[in-house]
Amino acid sequence: MALINENFLKLSESYLFTEIARKVNAYKEEHPKADVISLGIGDVTQPLAPAVIEALHTATDEMASAASFRGYGPERGYDFLSEAIVENDFRSRGIDIEADEVFVSDGAKSDTGNFQELLSAKCVVAVTDPVYPVYIDANTMAGREIVKLPCTAENGFVPELPTRHVDVIYLCYPNNPTGTTLTKEQLKVWVDYAIRENALIFYDAAYEAYIQSKDVPHSIYEIPGAKQCAVEFHSYSKTAGFTGIRCGYTVVPKTLRASLNKLWNRRQSTKFNGTSYLAQRAAEAIYTPKGKTQIKTTIAYYMENARMMRKALTGMGFKVYGGIDAPYLWVHTPGSMTSWEFFDWMLHSAHVVCTPGVGFGAQGEGYVRLTAFGTHENTEKALRRIDSKL
Amino acid sequence: MALINENFLKLSESYLFTEIARKVNAYKEEHPKADVISLGIGDVTQPLAPAVIEALHTATDEMASAASFRGYGPERGYDFLSEAIVENDFRSRGIDIEADEVFVSDGAKSDTGNFQELLSAKCVVAVTDPVYPVYIDANTMAGREIVKLPCTAENGFVPELPTRHVDVIYLCYPNNPTGTTLTKEQLKVWVDYAIRENALIFYDAAYEAYIQSKDVPHSIYEIPGAKQCAVEFHSYSKTAGFTGIRCGYTVVPKTLRASLNKLWNRRQSTKFNGTSYLAQRAAEAIYTPKGKTQIKTTIAYYMENARMMRKALTGMGFKVYGGIDAPYLWVHTPGSMTSWEFFDWMLHSAHVVCTPGVGFGAQGEGYVRLTAFGTHENTEKALRRIDSKL
Repeated sequence: MALINENFLKLSESYLFTEIARKVNAYKEEHPKADVISLGIGDVTQPLAPAVIEALHTATDEMASAASFRGYGPERGYDFLSEAIVENDFRSRGIDIEADEVFVSDGAKSDTGNFQELLSAKCVVAVTDPVYPVYIDANTMAGREIVKLPCTAENGFVPELPTRHVDVIYLCYPNNPTGTTLTKEQLKVWVDYAIRENALIFYDAAYEAYIQSKDVPHSIYEIPGAKQCAVEFHSYSKTAGFTGIRCGYTVVPKTLRASLNKLWNRRQSTKFNGTSYLAQRAAEAIYTPKGKTQIKTTIAYYMENARMMRKALTGMGFKVYGGIDAPYLWVHTPGSMTSWEFFDWMLHSAHVVCTPGVGFGAQGEGYVRLTAFGTHENTEKALRRIDSKL
Repeated sequence: MALINENFLKLSESYLFTEIARKVNAYKEEHPKADVISLGIGDVTQPLAPAVIEALHTATDEMASAASFRGYGPERGYDFLSEAIVENDFRSRGIDIEADEVFVSDGAKSDTGNFQELLSAKCVVAVTDPVYPVYIDANTMAGREIVKLPCTAENGFVPELPTRHVDVIYLCYPNNPTGTTLTKEQLKVWVDYAIRENALIFYDAAYEAYIQSKDVPHSIYEIPGAKQCAVEFHSYSKTAGFTGIRCGYTVVPKTLRASLNKLWNRRQSTKFNGTSYLAQRAAEAIYTPKGKTQIKTTIAYYMENARMMRKALTGMGFKVYGGIDAPYLWVHTPGSMTSWEFFDWMLHSAHVVCTPGVGFGAQGEGYVRLTAFGTHENTEKALRRIDSKL
């Protein structure tokens, strides 16, 4: 019989969000009248910006005529988008990134999942605990050893440097799931470590657009030396509500050792056929003056939810972290409840879906993650229900 | 320093089509007035069907309002599409495939590239020679041993069973690049072999919509036993001109050994975030009565090119294969010219881009692949030019 990749057998039974969906669906089937509000999975609720809608219609019309039809695009993305990215996300911040260091894709989940293919199975990988499960699962599938860096209330959710050599460190800031951030100084510690140890940093900047504080870096390339050691992942899912459109990008500097830029290009040219032309035109539209204003409005809407949630939950006596520069709040469960106990209580009593912190790692036990991606109305309703049931 | 996956160093310098694009661009830069016609890379030229355009506009409008906005969809695809696939591509042909055996994706290139992740690096993989390069490159990146099965004019481009045990066989029919097909009886030989040897068949049916002959199977599941041994890859790229839209699907029967259906679901849930909602609505539209008629018209248009090309090239004295049930023609080079020599001659003399057969494997030496995806006008013009320069 064809031999199976045995590393798959080391994975936990199901992907966290699949498990949550299963529990929620089961509850809804038993209680069809329950008005369940999800503050769980990080999916947005606001519609696409008008500038994006317009770009999608225009691009669709182009596909209707032979003269303007677009077939296969470059695997790495169209220049019109790469150049808009370079100009708006980097040059405007004084960061020197070139268009051929940008790889447009169908989303940061694919790229954070696939990028590890370029590395040997012998690499030792460090991740924070708690962590976005994709980093662990993708490396487990490849058979790599994984080192966990605890992020707890005690260390202010700032991971300490590993006590042994590691080859790769995944960092996600603003952080999923804790909603916390690193200052430039705190991030510099990691860039210096990576250079010293000849390690790579895989920097997930999916929530960059939610940063409000001045001393929080929007890109790891704001830190000197990062172009020698860091790959950076970006997503339009949360920036512009593209969860159903599918577009993101990854920056792979040409100054990285081992020609990673060339290797990633080879990987993408071989196993990927480019991002939808429609999605790329949609992404381009968020960099227009109108698009920029519109997506800022939506982000402000979600961040108002975050403010409301922080205030209300703190008022109820919860210990709350995050939610200032990120759409996530990391909430300590009451008393000695476990994450899943509190998840069940929230679902059954308040009809609110949260994400059990322990699903993100052992250090997440005793926490749940709440997201600010609901509507104002649902968020307020959820908070009132939690308050009334406590 | 972080250790690199050394298997990448075993890859040839660049992906075939990237190399062709480089040569063509260099020629165009030197000869900016040359009217270069591409019959090379298999990209379509006809616009999307009106039914698809309408579906894209409608889906875009849904994304413009909170009430109908769609965020993350199921990683495996929406039921509306899986059910249309099951009904139209399988049940209507008497094949019993269930919706949860269908995985919608951003295209067959991603899936044929990624599916091997489920297998051990120890698996021995068989591919035809010539072959679509993705199968070889993806398995080379994973460090697998590859066995080549020659497909030559002598054996009628029908591969012979391997003389040693292999764990996986990639078969692509209608074939890319030769444009040839297998009858049901010829395909049955492979299904029987896979069952006997406990092997898996990865069946690439990307060109299924081009089949005209009655005894050529549209799906490997027309062969008894295939649901025990075969995964089947489908693409809308050529079926409906989705090369720029990005949508395809893969069938992973639950009856396959080693729970491959569950493993693929785990892989996709971990490293993929679902296919664009717009692309899925677009794909659904090709199964409507209007959509079916419209895509048949476009396929007939391309197959008229194939007929024209076969006739003209045969008339010029070329040995031509394929082009009857596939949009590809496999053309023997004149005299003792190599594939790349003929490619250069075609580009420089006739300003026509073809694909050098040797780029698909050693057995492709002395051939080029021509595609029927041009316009009638360009195809006729290209044929006249070749004729006049011979």
